[in-house]
Amino acid sequence: MANYPAKVKIVEVGARDGLQNEASVSTQSKIALLNALADAGLKHLEAGAFVSPKWVPQMADSAQVIQGITRTPGVEISALTPNLKGAELALENQVDEFAIFTAASEAFTQKNINCSIEESIERFRPVVELAQKNNIKVRGYVSCIAGCPYQGKVEPERVLEVCKQLLALGCYEISLGDTIGVGTANQIGSLLELLLEHIPAQRLAVHFHDTYGQALANIHKALEMGIATIDSAVAGLGGCPYAKGASGNVATEDVIYLLQGLGISTEIDLERLAKAGWQICDALNKEPVSKVSLALKNTCQS
Amino acid sequence: MANYPAKVKIVEVGARDGLQNEASVSTQSKIALLNALADAGLKHLEAGAFVSPKWVPQMADSAQVIQGITRTPGVEISALTPNLKGAELALENQVDEFAIFTAASEAFTQKNINCSIEESIERFRPVVELAQKNNIKVRGYVSCIAGCPYQGKVEPERVLEVCKQLLALGCYEISLGDTIGVGTANQIGSLLELLLEHIPAQRLAVHFHDTYGQALANIHKALEMGIATIDSAVAGLGGCPYAKGASGNVATEDVIYLLQGLGISTEIDLERLAKAGWQICDALNKEPVSKVSLALKNTCQS
Repeated sequence: MANYPAKVKIVEVGARDGLQNEASVSTQSKIALLNALADAGLKHLEAGAFVSPKWVPQMADSAQVIQGITRTPGVEISALTPNLKGAELALENQVDEFAIFTAASEAFTQKNINCSIEESIERFRPVVELAQKNNIKVRGYVSCIAGCPYQGKVEPERVLEVCKQLLALGCYEISLGDTIGVGTANQIGSLLELLLEHIPAQRLAVHFHDTYGQALANIHKALEMGIATIDSAVAGLGGCPYAKGASGNVATEDVIYLLQGLGISTEIDLERLAKAGWQICDALNKEPVSKVSLALKNTCQS
Repeated sequence: MANYPAKVKIVEVGARDGLQNEASVSTQSKIALLNALADAGLKHLEAGAFVSPKWVPQMADSAQVIQGITRTPGVEISALTPNLKGAELALENQVDEFAIFTAASEAFTQKNINCSIEESIERFRPVVELAQKNNIKVRGYVSCIAGCPYQGKVEPERVLEVCKQLLALGCYEISLGDTIGVGTANQIGSLLELLLEHIPAQRLAVHFHDTYGQALANIHKALEMGIATIDSAVAGLGGCPYAKGASGNVATEDVIYLLQGLGISTEIDLERLAKAGWQICDALNKEPVSKVSLALKNTCQS
């Protein structure tokens, strides 16, 4: 049947994109989460953000978190570095990979980071320079690839343009974010078709939020098109700042179940992963937003 | 991109397959649910089951429910009729369509309806005869198409064989049920490929449970392969008898969101549908298991 990639890279964003949109948890809980994720076999962990604690109080302890975790060879730790100051802090804390974040929507960029897309990219220039000087990889995020909470429609050509700018700046990989989870498989397919005419598949990742339940269908479509890097968050951590009570990032457990079913290698232990999710959900006093986790929870604990 | 069907038929199974696996609700709540579903534009409603109340106490009031609803021209009411006695009762209660239920797993059929697959099909013969005499359509359900809670693996050839037997018996349509939600898109794709070599797409429906979060990805795959009838339950009613706390039927709201995104006509009002789900969930004192419903709930009620 379909020609899936033989191996998929999972970028686990639960400790950053996830916890940033949850109630506060202790530094110790975050450290335990990241250690448990590494134990489950995850090799790419977004661990924090070096941003002003005024703007993102949940990430104020990123330095302590990253200092506190057990560093395992082969497990890369990344952090958001929106400006030079953040990048310098990330460097001091032995972060393996920087992440910079812009959007394909002008309205979103203005509301979210208070500047234009152009300005955001200029702001990243010294971040990328510092990274290159220190042999650190930089990952670019483009949010609102399928729609924007402020301006609605986002043109695929605009997404392509921003991807190209980030690649030209020096990013090794672009993570395409459907931040509000509105895209369906045909729309994601058409967008990827356009992007893949200009950008090799191995430089693209998909980052879906499951606000409207479409994430796994979209991931399956992306896999069929050769995309082999997927962002996800254990237990579906995160929620949606634009619709209280709605779902957040696609759950890593559900993605791994799909990949195992498709016969794609991930080297991740699904049961350990689910346990990592139960632990952080206990700390947050909530149920996992992962169907696989809920199904396993009964099976494993009964 | 993909060649989707222009129009999709939704078979809403919330009031039967859904409520059968939930806590009891009043007859009035069931009637209100079915009326609200018809108001939202659903044209095929599985409304009850004429089975022994000893076995399925939640369905004991099926006659009162069906007598109580407002019958709208163009809205078909179906009910499970596992034997001649049930079929006679369904007939007395002006049911438009009978549904008979077997499995592709011998172990499941033994445990679930206490006979072999062969015997179950023989048992349906007088049901189909009564239906034909009265010009009533009969729908066949085949459960465990992708796996069985008792025997594990289920061979696609076995699914094909049971489908053929039900069609030969006189069913106009076969609903293919992944009862425990274990299948992923490649497995479903391979199974459908085999079935479509022998059975026209318009005689097949898919019936997915979202136990492992795979339902929408599987539905998208089925749509790409020409399947144009989908079973679903408003608010994802149902749960899973084999894993407490796990998800049940795929949520109709999430299916409709997908279909609308794909540009497929459904004639269903998504907001009214979501409201029908909130109402029955209030009666059940639970949250909807539909991501779209949760996203809309905030948007519409705030």
